[in-house]
Amino acid sequence: MPKCYAMTGGKTGTWAVTSMRNVRGDGLTAAERIDISPIDLAPSPAGASWTLRGLISNIRYAERAEIAALKARQEGLGRPNAIRAALIPIRKSPAWWDLAQDERRAIFEETSHHTAIGMAYLPTIARQLYHCRDLGEPFDFLTWFEYAPEHATAFEDLVAKLRDTHEWTYVDREVDIRLARTGVHQE
Amino acid sequence: MPKCYAMTGGKTGTWAVTSMRNVRGDGLTAAERIDISPIDLAPSPAGASWTLRGLISNIRYAERAEIAALKARQEGLGRPNAIRAALIPIRKSPAWWDLAQDERRAIFEETSHHTAIGMAYLPTIARQLYHCRDLGEPFDFLTWFEYAPEHATAFEDLVAKLRDTHEWTYVDREVDIRLARTGVHQE
Repeated sequence: MPKCYAMTGGKTGTWAVTSMRNVRGDGLTAAERIDISPIDLAPSPAGASWTLRGLISNIRYAERAEIAALKARQEGLGRPNAIRAALIPIRKSPAWWDLAQDERRAIFEETSHHTAIGMAYLPTIARQLYHCRDLGEPFDFLTWFEYAPEHATAFEDLVAKLRDTHEWTYVDREVDIRLARTGVHQE
Repeated sequence: MPKCYAMTGGKTGTWAVTSMRNVRGDGLTAAERIDISPIDLAPSPAGASWTLRGLISNIRYAERAEIAALKARQEGLGRPNAIRAALIPIRKSPAWWDLAQDERRAIFEETSHHTAIGMAYLPTIARQLYHCRDLGEPFDFLTWFEYAPEHATAFEDLVAKLRDTHEWTYVDREVDIRLARTGVHQE
């Protein structure tokens, strides 16, 4: 089933608009009908091996004290000395997605210490999570890490600790891609 | 800042692949470089008034007992007699999005009884939530409801109760669009 939809207000569509009212803030221009159709995301460019798509979302599991600690310590992507990266796309099993929010949270942090493990490697390892599952993609998450060459050992240590958690037993597909930034600090 | 990205493995891009390893499940075909670019979602069709885009996601707040109760009672979209609908796009304030997961959950259910209110109107009012915020859209959610004409009063009652919750004080943009399905049961 498609997961991404466009609702277009105009002159066509199955649903006829019978009323439209601005409740709060800016309204929308008038429309006679609304059409609801699945969106096709941009295809892989010609000649490419594959394309993986993901969204930067809000933080889903971390609680107030953890967010404050993360914000205080983390650094952004694109630091001049962070010329090594890892792209690790992962998919979690149907058993994970059948869990409720409280159950996932319990495994994520209270059992697996996911946030605490990552925190120990801040700010040397910068991270960005992309969510893919809601786009109907083959992976659920694209995890992206950037670090300086001298922190490569610390990064291996971080990845090993994450793979050793209870949370990771729910990962049923994982590819580990390592990268070097080109055009700067050619070595 | 764009929120939706494509990571394409091929022959171009800033990042050179230095290694690629299948850890679990199916791998990916080889690539020399990875290009990371923002995705432009499909534009509004010519002649349309507007297009709102949204994703069907997993349930973010409900806990185990609530999910079981929802699944037992709710019915899907497209029921033959459900020829009335409401599309209510909403945006929540920056103050809402600055909250942590535990704080949002506390307002969502423990203070506002959002799930419990909706539950009382199942199965007569069918609902589908589309998430937009992660697509960089002007609204955060597209809420969609379908019901039979004889349940219109029950629907007004449901909407009034939701608008009266503490959660709704965080809604800073809201448009209320009512619809009738065409091509069936012409009245």
